Amino acid sequence: MQVWKDYQAENKDRFLEELLELLRIPSVSADSRFNGDTQRCAEAVKQRLQEAGADKVEVCQTAGHPIVYGEKIIDPSLPTVLVYGHYDVQPADPLELWHSGPFEPVIKDGNIYARGSADDKGQFYMHVKAFETMHKTNSIPCNIKFMIEGEEEVGSANLGIFLEQNKERLKADVVLISDTSMISLDTPSIDTGLRGLAYMEVEVTGPNRDLHSGVYGGAVANPATILAKMIASLHDENNHITIPGFYDKVQELSADERAALNAAPFDESAYKQDLGIADVWGEKGYSTIERTGIRPTLEVNGIWGGYTGEGSKTVLPSKAFAKISMRLVPNQDWHEISDLFTKHFEAIAPKSVKVKVTKHHGGSPYVTPTDSIAFKAAHEAINTTFGKAPIPVRGGGSIPIVALFEKTLGLKTVLMGFGLDSDNLHSPNEKYGLANYYKGIETIPYFHKYFAELAKK
Amino acid sequence: MQVWKDYQAENKDRFLEELLELLRIPSVSADSRFNGDTQRCAEAVKQRLQEAGADKVEVCQTAGHPIVYGEKIIDPSLPTVLVYGHYDVQPADPLELWHSGPFEPVIKDGNIYARGSADDKGQFYMHVKAFETMHKTNSIPCNIKFMIEGEEEVGSANLGIFLEQNKERLKADVVLISDTSMISLDTPSIDTGLRGLAYMEVEVTGPNRDLHSGVYGGAVANPATILAKMIASLHDENNHITIPGFYDKVQELSADERAALNAAPFDESAYKQDLGIADVWGEKGYSTIERTGIRPTLEVNGIWGGYTGEGSKTVLPSKAFAKISMRLVPNQDWHEISDLFTKHFEAIAPKSVKVKVTKHHGGSPYVTPTDSIAFKAAHEAINTTFGKAPIPVRGGGSIPIVALFEKTLGLKTVLMGFGLDSDNLHSPNEKYGLANYYKGIETIPYFHKYFAELAKK
Repeated sequence: MQVWKDYQAENKDRFLEELLELLRIPSVSADSRFNGDTQRCAEAVKQRLQEAGADKVEVCQTAGHPIVYGEKIIDPSLPTVLVYGHYDVQPADPLELWHSGPFEPVIKDGNIYARGSADDKGQFYMHVKAFETMHKTNSIPCNIKFMIEGEEEVGSANLGIFLEQNKERLKADVVLISDTSMISLDTPSIDTGLRGLAYMEVEVTGPNRDLHSGVYGGAVANPATILAKMIASLHDENNHITIPGFYDKVQELSADERAALNAAPFDESAYKQDLGIADVWGEKGYSTIERTGIRPTLEVNGIWGGYTGEGSKTVLPSKAFAKISMRLVPNQDWHEISDLFTKHFEAIAPKSVKVKVTKHHGGSPYVTPTDSIAFKAAHEAINTTFGKAPIPVRGGGSIPIVALFEKTLGLKTVLMGFGLDSDNLHSPNEKYGLANYYKGIETIPYFHKYFAELAKK
Repeated sequence: MQVWKDYQAENKDRFLEELLELLRIPSVSADSRFNGDTQRCAEAVKQRLQEAGADKVEVCQTAGHPIVYGEKIIDPSLPTVLVYGHYDVQPADPLELWHSGPFEPVIKDGNIYARGSADDKGQFYMHVKAFETMHKTNSIPCNIKFMIEGEEEVGSANLGIFLEQNKERLKADVVLISDTSMISLDTPSIDTGLRGLAYMEVEVTGPNRDLHSGVYGGAVANPATILAKMIASLHDENNHITIPGFYDKVQELSADERAALNAAPFDESAYKQDLGIADVWGEKGYSTIERTGIRPTLEVNGIWGGYTGEGSKTVLPSKAFAKISMRLVPNQDWHEISDLFTKHFEAIAPKSVKVKVTKHHGGSPYVTPTDSIAFKAAHEAINTTFGKAPIPVRGGGSIPIVALFEKTLGLKTVLMGFGLDSDNLHSPNEKYGLANYYKGIETIPYFHKYFAELAKK
């Protein structure tokens, strides 16, 4: 609609300035040293929601980082959309690999470079500006609620409690989230599925103290060596995961479904070139699209033990550690998988070491029904502003709370993401395209418009 | 001799005070942040040598940490003993495991707790005080030269050059070193052999940047997983090292030699209890004494990659690293073994990753001739002050420069160590027994006495 176009054109620069301000706050949820900043970030989100026209805006404290809530009820008889996003970000390290400060946003080659630019500050803030657009032009087509949390990157531990305690306040017809990617601005797509997650930490203890590797080397189990052997054994020669029972509940797709998935445009040589790898790697018998979309995985996210400083130290370490996470697909249950992992990891430990396995967090996989009116509204909105119908794809990432919304609030979720896989999510030099940002702000009002219309029918 | 006994009794407390002062200097050679302290430590050693009565004492600068030289030539026609030691120490981390500051020595239960107390400040300083004893009582039986270096813990990179440039100044009949252990004060022993060392660092690179483990996980080789698989493959199911050619030059001992070694008192259950391990671990077909004495080993001294901070980060890391060192036995050559390791490690890397292998440092293994007069002198000296003949044993550690002395100066070395394997060398809470310290000071003058006498014959 022209009024939206005009309003957004007039306020283009301010829309960007406000986002940059938000990106300057290092709201890292994983590291308690940043707790003051996450709090400050929540307050900033609250202020922006109020300025945009939301009512009953509140910073809701939790046992962890706060959740910001706001709403606009224009008519209780109209459908309600619950917009979810998160203002917390991943840790920025390794800092030395950033070309500019992770919390000093820089615009370069049409991109905003900053931690959280795409994941998820840049994407949830599109909804705030889209809402402002509709509000200031008196054209809000349905009720809209906002729930912006601060613990998505650490497993949303307190969101479940919040949902339980606020079922009435959160009543809605659908959840709308922009925290995923599309293939490209030329080839828009919508994620119809997300993988679940089970995040574990393991500790392997050999001798009760660090030892001299000359005096004891060769006679005492080295926990770093044993940990390496244990991790190595978690994938077989075909890169199948060896944990007993791991695949039991994995939903196998039909040949047609797999063909449809593989029909999505994908240039493997460009993919390899972008990552600087000579070859892809993964489970035998599946394409790259399948490996990241419909197959479960097991990845070492971090490993450490012994002397890792400058120079050399001839030590036989007492302990070695690893952070290991598994991506899950329907119908794997993350609690069950976490238990299978723990049981297996303890079982394969040789007598010479002790192992301790800790659950960090997790979430269930989710698939969006493509026949829902919400999905159709997203499909049409993108079709309108991109001039192209979006391709349905399976996303490899996880937003554990999507399954939580269904379980606790009985709500389906639409994943209308505007990022790109090349945005360096969770990596140094995270970026978000200016074009993606503005395209999102342009598209979102149409989602509400079409959703309201389809809901009437 | 009574004069020695009396002098040492009178100066007992000062001997200890001076050592504690030396231990307060954090002369960590591996970490350049401590370069000022290593320099300061060298100056302190110089001052102590001068006070003890040494002539021509000099802090000799090198491309790295300085070497302190001093000498006492009482008669050029008499034999000369070259005393070697090192004032540099291992890094102190992990700091949190120390019960007291690593560089704030405390006396507890008859032990001196401090980094470097046993390795090697406490041990080389015995020689300074033994020398002082003989000098102040006008009873030096032979010429004595001191060479105390500052890079032993990082491979003595510049000592070889120093030896080459100072062959005349370092002319001697034998090298005497106290930088090893004995079985116990009740069961004195002398190391007749040392293992060599080849210390490597490996870097495995997967994608050119850290990736989101959800978006890319399962389709891109994870360098931490690959590194684990590569490390795991370096030992087979019998804990034999799998590097082709690794064992080719290993000297196999005769059944008699092995029986003699295994005759040394060793209590495996006490060993396991001390280390808090349920079982020992190592190369099939060899005893613990053999595994640490006459067999080569491969140990992971450090491993790191990905996110190792608080909480969780769902990252697929770009790089993973490990420090890996091998202990070598006669007649393995450390350059050759380093090359075999490099070749093998590069060969086993899958196409999906890049590997970089770096040599840190190394040294050749060494065996002391037990029929030399120097060994006999050490044997007799210990017999005199301990009232027991020392047992010859094979040490597992490495003092690479011992082989260097033979090659460059044509000198054999006697390893008259007074430490204990339980002194936590290279570990938190390193200690050195007061009794060991004083016993060493008491014993060393007898070595010089007997060596001079046997040399005359």
